[in-house]
Amino acid sequence: MEQINAHKSFAGQQLRYRHSSDVLNCDMTFSIYLPPQAKQGPVPALYWLSGLTCTDENFITKAGAQQHAAQYGMAIICPDTSPRGDNVPDDAEGTYDFGLGAGFYVNATQPPWNQHYQMYDYVVNELPVIINQQFPIDGTKVGISGHSMGGHGALTIALKNPGQYQSVSAFAPICSPINCPWGKKALSQYLGNNQEVWKLYDTAELIKQSTPAQQLPVLIDQGDQDNFLEEQLRTELLEAACKNSNYLMTIRRQPGYDHSYFFIASFIGEHIQFHSQHLSLD
Amino acid sequence: MEQINAHKSFAGQQLRYRHSSDVLNCDMTFSIYLPPQAKQGPVPALYWLSGLTCTDENFITKAGAQQHAAQYGMAIICPDTSPRGDNVPDDAEGTYDFGLGAGFYVNATQPPWNQHYQMYDYVVNELPVIINQQFPIDGTKVGISGHSMGGHGALTIALKNPGQYQSVSAFAPICSPINCPWGKKALSQYLGNNQEVWKLYDTAELIKQSTPAQQLPVLIDQGDQDNFLEEQLRTELLEAACKNSNYLMTIRRQPGYDHSYFFIASFIGEHIQFHSQHLSLD
Repeated sequence: MEQINAHKSFAGQQLRYRHSSDVLNCDMTFSIYLPPQAKQGPVPALYWLSGLTCTDENFITKAGAQQHAAQYGMAIICPDTSPRGDNVPDDAEGTYDFGLGAGFYVNATQPPWNQHYQMYDYVVNELPVIINQQFPIDGTKVGISGHSMGGHGALTIALKNPGQYQSVSAFAPICSPINCPWGKKALSQYLGNNQEVWKLYDTAELIKQSTPAQQLPVLIDQGDQDNFLEEQLRTELLEAACKNSNYLMTIRRQPGYDHSYFFIASFIGEHIQFHSQHLSLD
Repeated sequence: MEQINAHKSFAGQQLRYRHSSDVLNCDMTFSIYLPPQAKQGPVPALYWLSGLTCTDENFITKAGAQQHAAQYGMAIICPDTSPRGDNVPDDAEGTYDFGLGAGFYVNATQPPWNQHYQMYDYVVNELPVIINQQFPIDGTKVGISGHSMGGHGALTIALKNPGQYQSVSAFAPICSPINCPWGKKALSQYLGNNQEVWKLYDTAELIKQSTPAQQLPVLIDQGDQDNFLEEQLRTELLEAACKNSNYLMTIRRQPGYDHSYFFIASFIGEHIQFHSQHLSLD
């Protein structure tokens, strides 16, 4: 593992690393913010999953999260959004919403994608082992969050692993990829045509199948001026699923806000406070 | 004047405009953050001048300033760092430290640069008239700040116009361009070979010529791990000039911080608080 960047930030450290990923079969970069409290011992961790077209760097440069991570003593780990490299297949048409930068946090089953696009396993299994070994992280106090495609990733990953994550939040998540163009395009190519398989990565569907014992603390913020809300994000399908399943979830419509990082920056402090409350419990 | 972007941010508005500049003889873009208090009436303003290679967008996406502007009820205006457009001459060698993105906030006297590179007049005279006419800004309560080349711009502009600006701050400013490679390269081409003319745009020289009645509140932060500190920024020359002239100035060396926006973000809240204290005086 090679350190490729280090910046002091709010008395902590914003670091970037390159490493070889076995499950993705390529080299990957990730960013990690270590708050000043990490000098004294292990700290809770928040994983952040970014959206379409992003790398591990968008969130750390645009969200203004470090000040809150420093205040609450929390590390933030940002993986990339897909496998990377010249050997990794990309969308033949070069679109932004499939292939590189658009891994959708699934384990692809269809060739040629299944050789590298195993982002679910990377985020859930491979990366946390590296993080817990290499950094002063308390691996028993872990939250997960994300934006858009990454909000979909955070919600599905937490719902499928309620023992591994103690809290989950999302900004403008894709709430039901089986019911939107972005999701249908990606899932059909990564997973094939059997839509029953797609449901394993659909937040609204996972809510329908959840039991009360599996419920996690969930906070979602959604701008009501988000251009993607009606066609792609489908928040109303998640709200309906929660109601039908009695899954208690805080879903806030934020008036006037759009899909941008200006929206994320405006509320990331409240999300980090939310995670801190749940991760500081013993 | 054409609005080209609008995002809600911390209950205020992050806006971007394109307009025709008479003094620069080209179209320009600028960004402005209006805090929520601007809905009730005119608010104080902070001008932010960015560094080499930047546009009007770096600061608004990376510095995390909006939350503090919203807290203190201050607008932030970000001009671009040079004239722009296909008709504007650029450095023939395409270097990053001269020409486009590197206007150095001077009025060029040498051809071909003098046709467009009049950034001093643009920032001091043309842009404030537009801002004060078009937005709810109290033009009698104005601070100025900036980073690196923009820190040089903020300091020289404020020192030359102590009646127009009530406070000035800077991050890692070029303190004496007549004594560093960046400054010598730019000033010799924009202003010609007479170094007496260069001194009109040199902070350390302006301090030597200042009178006690002209002293402004000044706050400077400088990271001690900044790679440009020794060769380009020359903070020690400004410190010496202030000492010799009894110019009271707060210059803080921040241990461990570098030249990046991670450094700016870590202290921008304290800078906005500093400006607010001086701009809220009647």
